[in-house]
Amino acid sequence: MATLVTIKSSPIEDAEALQKAFKDAEALHKSVQGWGTDEKSVITILGHRNVYQRQQIRKSYQETYQEDLLKRLESELSGDFERAVYRWMLEPADRDAVLANVAIKDGNKGHVIIEIVSVLSPEEVLAMRRAYHNRYKHSLEEDVAAHTTGHLRQLLVGLVTSFRYGGDEINPKLAKTEADILHESIKEKKGNPEEAIRILTTRSKTQLLATFNRYRDDHGISITKKLLDNASDDFHKALHTAIRCINDHKKYYEKVLRGALKRVGTDEDGLTRVVVTRAEKDLKDIKEVYYKRNSVHLEDAVAKEISGDYKKFILTLLGK
Amino acid sequence: MATLVTIKSSPIEDAEALQKAFKDAEALHKSVQGWGTDEKSVITILGHRNVYQRQQIRKSYQETYQEDLLKRLESELSGDFERAVYRWMLEPADRDAVLANVAIKDGNKGHVIIEIVSVLSPEEVLAMRRAYHNRYKHSLEEDVAAHTTGHLRQLLVGLVTSFRYGGDEINPKLAKTEADILHESIKEKKGNPEEAIRILTTRSKTQLLATFNRYRDDHGISITKKLLDNASDDFHKALHTAIRCINDHKKYYEKVLRGALKRVGTDEDGLTRVVVTRAEKDLKDIKEVYYKRNSVHLEDAVAKEISGDYKKFILTLLGK
Repeated sequence: MATLVTIKSSPIEDAEALQKAFKDAEALHKSVQGWGTDEKSVITILGHRNVYQRQQIRKSYQETYQEDLLKRLESELSGDFERAVYRWMLEPADRDAVLANVAIKDGNKGHVIIEIVSVLSPEEVLAMRRAYHNRYKHSLEEDVAAHTTGHLRQLLVGLVTSFRYGGDEINPKLAKTEADILHESIKEKKGNPEEAIRILTTRSKTQLLATFNRYRDDHGISITKKLLDNASDDFHKALHTAIRCINDHKKYYEKVLRGALKRVGTDEDGLTRVVVTRAEKDLKDIKEVYYKRNSVHLEDAVAKEISGDYKKFILTLLGK
Repeated sequence: MATLVTIKSSPIEDAEALQKAFKDAEALHKSVQGWGTDEKSVITILGHRNVYQRQQIRKSYQETYQEDLLKRLESELSGDFERAVYRWMLEPADRDAVLANVAIKDGNKGHVIIEIVSVLSPEEVLAMRRAYHNRYKHSLEEDVAAHTTGHLRQLLVGLVTSFRYGGDEINPKLAKTEADILHESIKEKKGNPEEAIRILTTRSKTQLLATFNRYRDDHGISITKKLLDNASDDFHKALHTAIRCINDHKKYYEKVLRGALKRVGTDEDGLTRVVVTRAEKDLKDIKEVYYKRNSVHLEDAVAKEISGDYKKFILTLLGK
């Protein structure tokens, strides 16, 4: 599995890295030349390079062949395999911007936007929003707001635009008050959803974890379970997703993977998204959570459900 | 007047700048030593140094005398003069964070927050929000949201959290549709304020200017004038302020200055805020707008209304 390595800056190692990127670009060029494509070598090379190396390869390819490697791969590959390679090749902030934009266009995927902005760190969200500007000449909140209304809009725009404080301080009194406000807000849907939105979109994640814990202590049930009973409309579903992503994103991703693999026909987009975005972060932990929950290794479940080059590529990223 | 100079990075010039900062720190140290303070030399030195030089002086002072120059000045100076010098000495993003925080604590100053986030560029707003984290261990939106409710909260939090697209593209069709939405929303207050909030908090400034122009063309009156008729409650007042700051912030600042100087007793906070925050940006233009509107030079109006060291300092920043 490709892992994020610390880049050392000694000139010799820099030269070595450049030389390696050049050779990779050369091999990739060979594999896309002439009749057919050598998918195996695309998988072998790109599936084992970290984010920094992939950017160097793309640059080296552009300089050597005056062509964008990404565009070339797009035209040579197809289907789920193409989409997975394309996403893997993008820088993380840019990739998240693409995922968010696809989710906005597909009206049914608000959960992807919630997932991205709730799991990323505050600074990563800013980087993603900047990448969104560069790519789409719009702000992310502009596009989200124009496609939603009412409380769902308030929640989504709030999550997208928030720049949460990243420190570890907790205010226990606030945790108690706001656990009660959340409880009132969720109970029979009679409370004020705007206060729940305010709390979930502005408080620091550490503070929110304290609030969720306090909720469980005082109300005898976890907030996510309680919400599940009420999550019939889009707004409450979105609330549920946001809380799960903030509360324990590894458990959340496990469930996305479980759902993606259990579906008749497999949700390849969900599978690709989790594997590609977490491969260089915490996919190892997510695999463990998956095994604990399902008594089946994620790799084995994946191997059973998908096929072809797409399967080979995803298994490579999974470290098989 | 101190103006923002481009810092050249040649080693000789760097050494010269450091030497100058050291001498300034030495002179300032002398002026705050022993009985009384030599306010005149504080004004002469600090009033004629740009933002970069002031930071160097503060650093040099700390290294030489193991003391924070800002804290020392706070204890040596007093009143409006102290507040003006203190604000002048802060880096812009940090200064805006302080101004926003003071405005949140003083329930009556929402317009200052609107002014800051509507006038700054998108990237400057982010820098200010980061400075707010560092200083207060909270997010700005967290504090704003906790002190407001309803549509006023939606508008303020939206303005504070927005990271507008900064490009120059205009969508004329959108300008027409959204001019109409704004018109409906303002008319007799019967429209949907949430749509007005969405437009004003998410669209790029260039797009909003096109929308405001379209509003005037189609409805025969400028949106700010129309709003003025309806601005009786806090929400509509806030809407009015936001639109004025986005539409023409120099005209907005002129009016703040005019109001500050015309009041019985003078609004020193307003005067200081505009002069200190704009001195290294566009104070020259604002002075021109002021003269055109009042047939009196801003310096003369200021000289008439305030006195003492505060007067000398403000006039120095005004370039007198």
